[in-house]
Amino acid sequence: MKIQGILTPNIVPFHDDRSINEGELRRYVSWLIDKGVSGLYPNGSTGEFIRLSFEERKQITAIVADEAAGRVPILAGAAEANIDLVLDACAHCADLGCAAVSVTGPYYYNVSQESIEHYFRELAEKSPIDILLYNIPQFSNEIGVEVVRRLALDCPRIIGIKDSSRDMPRFMNTLAKIKPQRPDFTCLIGCEEILLPSLLMGGDGGTVATSGVAPEAVMKLYHDWQRGDLEEAKRIQFKMLEVIETMFAAGNFPEGFREGVNLRGFNAGRARQPMAPGEMEHFLKIRSKLACLLGDCGFDEAAAHCQRTDHEAPSGLKEQIERIDVETLVREVVGKLNPGQ
Amino acid sequence: MKIQGILTPNIVPFHDDRSINEGELRRYVSWLIDKGVSGLYPNGSTGEFIRLSFEERKQITAIVADEAAGRVPILAGAAEANIDLVLDACAHCADLGCAAVSVTGPYYYNVSQESIEHYFRELAEKSPIDILLYNIPQFSNEIGVEVVRRLALDCPRIIGIKDSSRDMPRFMNTLAKIKPQRPDFTCLIGCEEILLPSLLMGGDGGTVATSGVAPEAVMKLYHDWQRGDLEEAKRIQFKMLEVIETMFAAGNFPEGFREGVNLRGFNAGRARQPMAPGEMEHFLKIRSKLACLLGDCGFDEAAAHCQRTDHEAPSGLKEQIERIDVETLVREVVGKLNPGQ
Amino acid sequence: MKIQGILTPNIVPFHDDRSINEGELRRYVSWLIDKGVSGLYPNGSTGEFIRLSFEERKQITAIVADEAAGRVPILAGAAEANIDLVLDACAHCADLGCAAVSVTGPYYYNVSQESIEHYFRELAEKSPIDILLYNIPQFSNEIGVEVVRRLALDCPRIIGIKDSSRDMPRFMNTLAKIKPQRPDFTCLIGCEEILLPSLLMGGDGGTVATSGVAPEAVMKLYHDWQRGDLEEAKRIQFKMLEVIETMFAAGNFPEGFREGVNLRGFNAGRARQPMAPGEMEHFLKIRSKLACLLGDCGFDEAAAHCQRTDHEAPSGLKEQIERIDVETLVREVVGKLNPGQ
Amino acid sequence: MKIQGILTPNIVPFHDDRSINEGELRRYVSWLIDKGVSGLYPNGSTGEFIRLSFEERKQITAIVADEAAGRVPILAGAAEANIDLVLDACAHCADLGCAAVSVTGPYYYNVSQESIEHYFRELAEKSPIDILLYNIPQFSNEIGVEVVRRLALDCPRIIGIKDSSRDMPRFMNTLAKIKPQRPDFTCLIGCEEILLPSLLMGGDGGTVATSGVAPEAVMKLYHDWQRGDLEEAKRIQFKMLEVIETMFAAGNFPEGFREGVNLRGFNAGRARQPMAPGEMEHFLKIRSKLACLLGDCGFDEAAAHCQRTDHEAPSGLKEQIERIDVETLVREVVGKLNPGQ
Repeated sequence: MKIQGILTPNIVPFHDDRSINEGELRRYVSWLIDKGVSGLYPNGSTGEFIRLSFEERKQITAIVADEAAGRVPILAGAAEANIDLVLDACAHCADLGCAAVSVTGPYYYNVSQESIEHYFRELAEKSPIDILLYNIPQFSNEIGVEVVRRLALDCPRIIGIKDSSRDMPRFMNTLAKIKPQRPDFTCLIGCEEILLPSLLMGGDGGTVATSGVAPEAVMKLYHDWQRGDLEEAKRIQFKMLEVIETMFAAGNFPEGFREGVNLRGFNAGRARQPMAPGEMEHFLKIRSKLACLLGDCGFDEAAAHCQRTDHEAPSGLKEQIERIDVETLVREVVGKLNPGQ
Repeated sequence: MKIQGILTPNIVPFHDDRSINEGELRRYVSWLIDKGVSGLYPNGSTGEFIRLSFEERKQITAIVADEAAGRVPILAGAAEANIDLVLDACAHCADLGCAAVSVTGPYYYNVSQESIEHYFRELAEKSPIDILLYNIPQFSNEIGVEVVRRLALDCPRIIGIKDSSRDMPRFMNTLAKIKPQRPDFTCLIGCEEILLPSLLMGGDGGTVATSGVAPEAVMKLYHDWQRGDLEEAKRIQFKMLEVIETMFAAGNFPEGFREGVNLRGFNAGRARQPMAPGEMEHFLKIRSKLACLLGDCGFDEAAAHCQRTDHEAPSGLKEQIERIDVETLVREVVGKLNPGQ
Repeated sequence: MKIQGILTPNIVPFHDDRSINEGELRRYVSWLIDKGVSGLYPNGSTGEFIRLSFEERKQITAIVADEAAGRVPILAGAAEANIDLVLDACAHCADLGCAAVSVTGPYYYNVSQESIEHYFRELAEKSPIDILLYNIPQFSNEIGVEVVRRLALDCPRIIGIKDSSRDMPRFMNTLAKIKPQRPDFTCLIGCEEILLPSLLMGGDGGTVATSGVAPEAVMKLYHDWQRGDLEEAKRIQFKMLEVIETMFAAGNFPEGFREGVNLRGFNAGRARQPMAPGEMEHFLKIRSKLACLLGDCGFDEAAAHCQRTDHEAPSGLKEQIERIDVETLVREVVGKLNPGQ
Repeated sequence: MKIQGILTPNIVPFHDDRSINEGELRRYVSWLIDKGVSGLYPNGSTGEFIRLSFEERKQITAIVADEAAGRVPILAGAAEANIDLVLDACAHCADLGCAAVSVTGPYYYNVSQESIEHYFRELAEKSPIDILLYNIPQFSNEIGVEVVRRLALDCPRIIGIKDSSRDMPRFMNTLAKIKPQRPDFTCLIGCEEILLPSLLMGGDGGTVATSGVAPEAVMKLYHDWQRGDLEEAKRIQFKMLEVIETMFAAGNFPEGFREGVNLRGFNAGRARQPMAPGEMEHFLKIRSKLACLLGDCGFDEAAAHCQRTDHEAPSGLKEQIERIDVETLVREVVGKLNPGQ
């Protein structure tokens, strides 16, 4: 199963005691698949992989793979503390039938580009499963475009990149330097504000946290683009921007995205990095705004939590666009995924 | 004359003694107009405005306006040391018949967003000419999106923004927050690597330094986009990327862009910030590469300076694309600009 | 007159119409000299040099030099838009009898270290007056330590560095790499929080904006250090920290320092970059706190503006230290400066 | 045993297969204690804690504590993936008899100051062992000075800070804001270039990686300072600067420090993040320079690896200072530590 389209980086539901809520995670994964996402992406930054133990990360991948049961491909995060642990995680993901793993540049220390290249070459040589480079310079060492290019040309095991740098010029240069010589190299964008521009310029899809909150909308954008309806895809992309901004404004990432999932009817609990009591007031205000925005998108379970005050009328943009017809969308998505039916 | 399309930020030719070469500047301006650029943009960062004296900046605008003689609109940089000098420059540009001025956020010191907003409100109130905000956080204080939005909604004199931040998510948010309520607000991109994505998402054009070196190519991209030929526009955009990267790699900005102009047959001299002797060797190597790249685009005057060595064969990308048919392009551009003919 | 000790970067008093208030500037300069500062430093960042016109900067230096009339050495800022204008300013400062000029690395654009070295070598060769390098990477290109070292060893005209980088490890490395081979190379710190540590480690003094607000305190620290009273110098250094923090918190730099000067009995007016109305409330609150802090130092003219509220009691640190005996201090300073009397 | 003086952040010797070399670690720990370091600091950044597994980190602390056997206090790094794992590590360190643990701000994600404060308050409440805040904003979220101040005043369990920010103004402000109200709050510097300035201004010591390579020199500086010999302490501090710069220049941190340990007669192996083959040539050149510098300090085992070429004569600084008399120093240190003998 090829890695392309929209891969949803799942949040991890936690119990009040911060342990993993397996039941809710399973329910959430199946809901996402039912909504038509192209694939799943456990142990990404949205999934707070860095706050889990090594064993918990393995457990998350196992739960997601088991629940997906082959319905969609799985790209599993495998960024671990050192190369031997990464390889251990790779073997585990291969055993579970994942399609590929995603590995960040080393984090914490500054590491030279030469060493980063060397690191991925060793991984590529020893990994039993395909690898996507995961570029997220906000949090870990950037994997320079020239390093990506050399790895792409030399290492069959490295099949693509997931770029969360928010840097569109960089994404363009990546496409320009690699696709002509290795057209099958998968270039995913990890920045939902520019999903549509990336697709239009030749990208292969995205790992888009918003697709874990509003999979109907993100998949509609993707399918609109696939069938060439640029205007409708643009309408959705712009509509998404306010939702995205609101989720980022809610508190420490990924708390806002987790709350978006809650508003869709799940019990995700709080993130592993708890908010201070003083931050909660702000959070609840943002939560209500998010509920209204999701409600405006036609998600009734979210609308129930919308407490609109007079001075928070819907924005100009939202007024102009009609509601997404969810049922039609779902039908369409399901049809695409099961063309024979 | 409305500010839209491709506005070329001209370099300034200097004599060996670092004084302005007026004759070569006039020849260059007319050449750009003949090549079909939508407008001119003197005293931008490409024009080294910061290295000119106040009087020289006035002189540059006067020369460009006089040479253009109304053939294309002029957006003139008017970022000066303080608000009174900005207003002095605004009056000068108004007298010369410029279409608008462009003003950066204050540079050097860090200034609060509130003060930046206050600064532009005072400018908007007192300026005799329309203003574009010039956002270039690499070099001067960022003008935050919320400030841009409030200024756009409140100040008729502020007619748009030129965004050189290289930040596509920011550009998307700017479009989303302003266009629904003020559709005529001009949103220009100042980052040539993402010109096409910005146009596709609703941008109004760009101030693109590459259009001062390869105006035929940039205008072709723009016209391809206008007539809906996305594939051809993409081809040009990607082709431009290597040229852009090479010009940035030549040395301190804008030395590489100045050399691009030289390779098109002008005598621009060196930038006002001279290179060290030890940097010249690198520069000459890059210059030859640039000459080859421009030669590959069909610019024969540049091709004459291409000294290709064995290990510098044309890249895979370049091999795949045929040469730009310059004559057809110029004809097409001229036709668009003079629809009555 | 050698550049060492405490050189005060003067603010520039402005009239309400933003023009230079020459009378108040003269009164302020003489007051500073009477208080015993080692030298004056017009056209530094504190003096908002970047917001003055070229002619105004020349005017400021001329006023300060004329008013000082040889009583203290003058280090004049000469960072101009290009090398020829810097040399013009250097000649002007030489004519006025200044001791040296201070020149930042080029600002606005990013410029390579090689080009920065080349730039200073050309300046050193052509300048009729001694030069101090002015390193302030917050606002202009950093002058790397290796570049400083080579310039120091090769260029007699370059007699020192004023380092405002706030980077003590860098300052230590500068001392270690240059002093052994050129002991007369003047190393001034431009970060008042670490004035005493810099002196203790071998620095030659500082350009300290706080000395324009509380010259008695800063000179006392300097003289305490000179006569080996480390404990008393530490007491003053720590006492200064809260004053410094308060001035930085008042608004855009250097507004808080300007207000400090006002509280000492001058009419400096507002900075050239005006505050937004909404920022004024915060400013007035901070102003009152600053007045109290300066009052606690024994400056009665400031104490008159202190409106202490219950919850703003003096901090623990302030309570522990007795007031500075200003008269004794001034007598001591004058004695040091005029040892024959 | 109080945390003060020089705590050595030990590197971890690895076998060729990247597993922990317990024997060599034990030999190294005992050597450090014999050389007179004030304490040990396992699982710091120098110890590559982030590249170890959770179990390995526990193992390292256990080995160090067992080998030290109460001879010196142990400050153990306990920065783990989430608060529950931190508390698990705290309990483990308490069981081993460590004096305190050191905990960084959360790494990878950006986390608000409010949440960081909340995080440490929860830790302080639940930890069975004293805690030092570990501020290292290069690699993990900065713990703002105001947060440090509030935690210091409210939480008895939080007994100090180890500040590796390289930011001396910040360190000064920390001392000024906390020491007057909580004099026993331990303020350690984690930046060896400014060890002496920090001590002179009131700091309590440092976690200084160089003390793992040249413990004789760092302890001499510390004892020189203790007995008030500022000039001698300065001489050592400046001498250390070139050694420090050379170790940082060797490659990815902490490879140069690891090689320094090798040059003192240990077999530390390579870091867990291997160098690329192309980086090794540079490394070997730097290694030889480091060997010469350590040889100049009187460490004969290092001198054996010094291959000085003609153009690499000892620097001016080194020539001026006589060799450290190691034996005298060791005797002095031992005397201080065992005053009764």
